[in-house]
Amino acid sequence: MEKDITIYDIAKNLGVSPTTVSRALNNHPAVKEKTKKKIFQAASDMGYQSNIFAANLRSKRTNNIGVIVPSLNSNFQASVLAGMEKVANGAGFNLVISQSLESSAKEIANTRSMFNSRVDGLLVSLASDAEHLEHFTPFHRKGIPVIFYDRIANSDDSTGVAIDNIQAAHIATNHLIEQGCKRIAHISGSIKVSVYAERLKGYKYALIDKNIPYEEELVIILSDINEEAGEKIVEQIMQMDPLPDGLFISNDACAASCMNHLKLKGIRIPEDMAIVGFNNEIISRLVEPKITTINYPGYEMGEVAMKNMINHLEGTSGSPLSKTNKITLRSELIIRESSLKKK
Amino acid sequence: MEKDITIYDIAKNLGVSPTTVSRALNNHPAVKEKTKKKIFQAASDMGYQSNIFAANLRSKRTNNIGVIVPSLNSNFQASVLAGMEKVANGAGFNLVISQSLESSAKEIANTRSMFNSRVDGLLVSLASDAEHLEHFTPFHRKGIPVIFYDRIANSDDSTGVAIDNIQAAHIATNHLIEQGCKRIAHISGSIKVSVYAERLKGYKYALIDKNIPYEEELVIILSDINEEAGEKIVEQIMQMDPLPDGLFISNDACAASCMNHLKLKGIRIPEDMAIVGFNNEIISRLVEPKITTINYPGYEMGEVAMKNMINHLEGTSGSPLSKTNKITLRSELIIRESSLKKK
Repeated sequence: MEKDITIYDIAKNLGVSPTTVSRALNNHPAVKEKTKKKIFQAASDMGYQSNIFAANLRSKRTNNIGVIVPSLNSNFQASVLAGMEKVANGAGFNLVISQSLESSAKEIANTRSMFNSRVDGLLVSLASDAEHLEHFTPFHRKGIPVIFYDRIANSDDSTGVAIDNIQAAHIATNHLIEQGCKRIAHISGSIKVSVYAERLKGYKYALIDKNIPYEEELVIILSDINEEAGEKIVEQIMQMDPLPDGLFISNDACAASCMNHLKLKGIRIPEDMAIVGFNNEIISRLVEPKITTINYPGYEMGEVAMKNMINHLEGTSGSPLSKTNKITLRSELIIRESSLKKK
Repeated sequence: MEKDITIYDIAKNLGVSPTTVSRALNNHPAVKEKTKKKIFQAASDMGYQSNIFAANLRSKRTNNIGVIVPSLNSNFQASVLAGMEKVANGAGFNLVISQSLESSAKEIANTRSMFNSRVDGLLVSLASDAEHLEHFTPFHRKGIPVIFYDRIANSDDSTGVAIDNIQAAHIATNHLIEQGCKRIAHISGSIKVSVYAERLKGYKYALIDKNIPYEEELVIILSDINEEAGEKIVEQIMQMDPLPDGLFISNDACAASCMNHLKLKGIRIPEDMAIVGFNNEIISRLVEPKITTINYPGYEMGEVAMKNMINHLEGTSGSPLSKTNKITLRSELIIRESSLKKK
């Protein structure tokens, strides 16, 4: 391994003073553009590594922003991260990422690791079994901003970026009612996760608003609603008596998988059962029939959450983070063939 | 913002010596378990932030490993990152992530930023227009390991983790030939990207091996082969005269989208055209007919690349990184309805 290149090495090499090199690298106006260019080139050629690290120790900034996601292996989280990285990179911040794998214990460990490695801020989408938020207290104490996104915390001193899941589920369920469905089942993920609990509420409220009784036996709750769960869910649906004529399923991959297994049982979509999914994932557009869904702007959510974080860190935000309790993004119903009983 | 909590504060609070606190936090055997537990609890309650940062400055280690991906918004990259994070987290390393957005200029800037923030190692999947690898020279000079994955570099002094794309494409094409296809078209991404260039080769070799002439007009190359491109690709396919009877498409999302648009034109799959995709994404299993594809183990690739990185950093790897030029993962053909002409 080579010795670190210093500004003294660059100065010696170019026959200028170390002060000039230091000033040039810090873009000081006293150094001529031509000289700066020469020094930049030499620094790059010689493999000079600016001592951001030591500088950070002095400024107490790392320029690292931590992100804790439930799982990296998710379409939705991938698009959120893409939006976050775009904004962070543009502002000179790095993204440090870890996954809780839906385990509160791992979330706590990740949070501690982020704290100890001194991230400037933390963005979190909560694990499904997160029962308290005490592990974020050290951040609040030290004034390190924490912003929740998608799966946000219901506490007064936290900021969250999310869509209105109650309203979105209300709109989705109401659409099924308007298509003539009289017996609508709902497939939900663990209601420990805020987004699923809220969608279940929206489903209930939509029924109530149209004077349709809420029946618990029409709700299937699973810890993981994904492609693999489709077969099991369809078995449960087929045991409902009478069969439902509409399904509101809390994500698209699961909706597509259920649709496949329902078709294998001879159920016609949408004639026998109309289906609405959630997220507007690519899969909802490529299956047959195409699935009606809620467009959930993941990329935009990532951008908004990160912009808020950086504005806060740069002190350009109008109001302190704690005053902005919730930022709600627009979502919308996209109507496709899977729910269109009336054509 | 509060003042930093030091080991002196903890010592004072508990009425023990600062040495005991320091030893306990470093898990020194001379401190009784009971005392350690008490000190850990106090450190946590008081919001003590261990000075990893200053320790890193001394050890010249950051425990950060950089990852540069072409785009975060990708199913495949999401599963790779999930595998990487699992391994890194288990070994006490953090993941610092940035995306090149397929731009070589951005990749160079990201590489420099990773270098300056002193990552301990770098994992890279190259941008499509990467024309040289000079930007990694500062890493080599300083002995910071660089491992390429998926889109790897063809140079002697770099380590890469990938599948054998030539072989996989050969198997995919040969399967179409065995199903009776006589005129097979190939849809490829930019051949500046190694994986697409190699798949094109595998396609050619499979034809040659069965004495089928290679015809350039049966190859469609697009900079971005994704869902959106499907319509345009199908227009090009429909102008081929005579029409092809088999399609080997370099990713599943594009294959699913092409299949949809072909069906709209009245083409029966697989009777009129058999289709093989690539990656074994969820979408390949949920469309109708299900798409034959190459299973590409993204999660495993992430695990293998990260394990190699960490073994190298920990000095437990048997051979130096530069000696291991390429690690090839197994891939396999998964046969489904979209290509089964002979039943």
